[in-house]
Amino acid sequence: MLEAAELGAKLKKATYEQRLPQLRADLIQAQQDLRSAGFSVIVLIAGDDHRGCHAAINTLNEWLDPRGIRVHVFEDPTQEEAERPVYWRYWRALPAAGRIGIFSGAWMFRAVADRLCKRTREAEFDVALERIRRFEGELADAGTLVVKFWLHQPEKPAVAELEKVREHPERYGAFGRTDQAMLDDFTRSMKVVERSLRETESAAIPWHLVESTDKRHRDWTIAATLLAALQRHLGRGAAGDPAAATAWYGTPDHCSILDTVDLAQHLDKDDYRKLLAKRQRKIRKLTLGHNAASPTAVLVFEGWDAAGKGGVIRRLCAAIDAPCYDVVPIAAPSDEERAHHYLWRFWRHIPRRGHITVFDRSWYGRVLVERVEGFAREDEWRRAYAEITDFEEQLVEAGIAVCKFWLHIDRDEQLARFEAREQTPFKRYKITEEDYRNREQWPAYEQAVNDMIAHTSSEFAPWH
Amino acid sequence: MLEAAELGAKLKKATYEQRLPQLRADLIQAQQDLRSAGFSVIVLIAGDDHRGCHAAINTLNEWLDPRGIRVHVFEDPTQEEAERPVYWRYWRALPAAGRIGIFSGAWMFRAVADRLCKRTREAEFDVALERIRRFEGELADAGTLVVKFWLHQPEKPAVAELEKVREHPERYGAFGRTDQAMLDDFTRSMKVVERSLRETESAAIPWHLVESTDKRHRDWTIAATLLAALQRHLGRGAAGDPAAATAWYGTPDHCSILDTVDLAQHLDKDDYRKLLAKRQRKIRKLTLGHNAASPTAVLVFEGWDAAGKGGVIRRLCAAIDAPCYDVVPIAAPSDEERAHHYLWRFWRHIPRRGHITVFDRSWYGRVLVERVEGFAREDEWRRAYAEITDFEEQLVEAGIAVCKFWLHIDRDEQLARFEAREQTPFKRYKITEEDYRNREQWPAYEQAVNDMIAHTSSEFAPWH
Repeated sequence: MLEAAELGAKLKKATYEQRLPQLRADLIQAQQDLRSAGFSVIVLIAGDDHRGCHAAINTLNEWLDPRGIRVHVFEDPTQEEAERPVYWRYWRALPAAGRIGIFSGAWMFRAVADRLCKRTREAEFDVALERIRRFEGELADAGTLVVKFWLHQPEKPAVAELEKVREHPERYGAFGRTDQAMLDDFTRSMKVVERSLRETESAAIPWHLVESTDKRHRDWTIAATLLAALQRHLGRGAAGDPAAATAWYGTPDHCSILDTVDLAQHLDKDDYRKLLAKRQRKIRKLTLGHNAASPTAVLVFEGWDAAGKGGVIRRLCAAIDAPCYDVVPIAAPSDEERAHHYLWRFWRHIPRRGHITVFDRSWYGRVLVERVEGFAREDEWRRAYAEITDFEEQLVEAGIAVCKFWLHIDRDEQLARFEAREQTPFKRYKITEEDYRNREQWPAYEQAVNDMIAHTSSEFAPWH
Repeated sequence: MLEAAELGAKLKKATYEQRLPQLRADLIQAQQDLRSAGFSVIVLIAGDDHRGCHAAINTLNEWLDPRGIRVHVFEDPTQEEAERPVYWRYWRALPAAGRIGIFSGAWMFRAVADRLCKRTREAEFDVALERIRRFEGELADAGTLVVKFWLHQPEKPAVAELEKVREHPERYGAFGRTDQAMLDDFTRSMKVVERSLRETESAAIPWHLVESTDKRHRDWTIAATLLAALQRHLGRGAAGDPAAATAWYGTPDHCSILDTVDLAQHLDKDDYRKLLAKRQRKIRKLTLGHNAASPTAVLVFEGWDAAGKGGVIRRLCAAIDAPCYDVVPIAAPSDEERAHHYLWRFWRHIPRRGHITVFDRSWYGRVLVERVEGFAREDEWRRAYAEITDFEEQLVEAGIAVCKFWLHIDRDEQLARFEAREQTPFKRYKITEEDYRNREQWPAYEQAVNDMIAHTSSEFAPWH
């Protein structure tokens, strides 16, 4: 999940300075429109990079009209606050209709910090996350626009900064217990963060994960995302073509998690054959003599057209004992499937103990093809992230290993493969007009894949 | 909560037989309309009276067109089911669009039974309830109509029946472990039930609590409620005046929890004075020398106009040490309050440790006056039940005692008091035209009070 904010995203100074005046003008305009609207806005800025959070809030404060906003920083509870229910201080700070409240850390950082510093146990942490869900849900139900940002830094810069702060608190501000916990075990800390984000995500109130290493990228992303959310909630799109406007406000320097895949990786043909045979023998051994101790697994293959899903699945299944597995190819749903919840047709194929089900394409169609082609409405595919995570969690809880693979190639490689297929008689059937049509949508799919990985790569079912 | 289904509700045979043909015809019509609608219907019939559940399902089966429905009874998991995630069997049983699935007990009864028989611990029970919330929420999000009934019998008939079953299982069917658990400790069992109902209630998928002792009342209520829900979801009201139709379909033999209050209770004047003085001394002792050990409490007074809220509060507060308490009279919200979430103005007045806040009317206005006068939309006041319970739970968790009183008089007594007030010069100001206007709405308020108590009387903050 957090890997989607570890891409080294940067915004060039020239682009930033050229576009900023327009963004700021649009923000002020949206704020003016908000004044007479019947709802309030809560901007929650939290993150493992909490120095970044403070800096981002300062920027937002500078860019917005100060008369319509109020910033709330929640330190340790005051005596007044400690003597009342935990959420008392948050309720008191809620902005009135027409106004924006900027909340620094607040309920979210509190829940994460308590767990990081082991002030809460696992079960209490669960309760705290459930409390957040309810609180934010009640606000959203009442029409409040809640926009949540989580600011993340990759381990290296984060640890470097934390060590700097520990050395020179007089220069960089207090070094707190949460900082210490992150330095002690960064991996565990990020697991706590991922769990918190996952459990408090909903279609109505999604998390916006922001890579905060580059200041310009951070501030631009926050302001532009807030602006888009405001305009949507006000029922006003940006002027002109909405798609163009989205592109304009989106992070100008394009950056996708797929870019981090090293496409130059290569395996020598002989090595490949030896390795493949070895792995296949291992798989055969695991599944042979199919019984209750055999592994139960769901394998999900997604990827670009011509990325090689079919070949991988064929070589994999060649190794599995036949009664142990099923391959389920997913195409457009049947009439019966269409008359049910979109997850129903996948639930049908869940393997029993000791079986393996291989999905050639899967429920991720909801957030890929259905999103890109407009078969699912935006609220539907946004909601699907949480539904899918919930679904996979149930599989894992039942003892099923869930392995998800995205087979990645670049656009040129795809074209080369398309052309090669057309030259090979027994592969020609695989290439249709639609494949070329899908190719046109490459950037839209890239965005969808990026969001999919950001939202559904959980510790119990990560994407490979 | 369950006390709202312990009223001895009965439906007269003559009324039932006279109205039934119309109800059945309307049900069949709604089912026909459903066929071409794009959504499916899940009717969950669960209850502590599970023999009643089976009987009710048989009736429903008889009244509906069998071609459009399917009944699913979930016994102990089969081998096939046991080897898969728990919800696999529920997903498989989901009806297609245009069809009705009647689920007997299912996920709800399973969660309750596991806890009753101590197969799950408290934390696991929490997880099971959360799972139900998510599952039902996902179905509702996808447009499925979920109609849930909980069939309840009061302790006496329930225990009598359970004993009968234990004696003669050959005649009445198997006597199960859940039955034994209920016989062992009925009070604990009902606490588990109340908690389950409370935690799985939402505005989109409310529980319909059905008193199941009288067969006709039970079957009529279920069928009429299902019909109303179907018609609403189909976007069609009943023909003609909707209010009249609702009245027609509502339980024909009027029955409210307020009817169970014994209005003939009387205290002799001398006894009253002695008792009052004694109680006041006790209260004074508790609150004197106000310190951190003093009780923290929120007292809520609601009741009919002229029921005597003012007098009770005056006599109560006369006993409390002055720095310890505040009386907060609740009238129409101010502009500032109106610009916030409706609970915001109550959060403001939450007492700190050692203080008592007395609310003269309260957040319950949301489900009383705002419901009856139409100031809140139906989805708003329905949602408020869960929001209020959540709010009060947070107070109790913070160590605040929450005591809620409904001051009840009957309609004649109210009129007599209105007239007496008009005769007393220093009380005349209390009576306005509005009081007489509100009197006209008595039946609507009675319904609202009944629903309020059914939905918000929790074990941590019961209504008195």
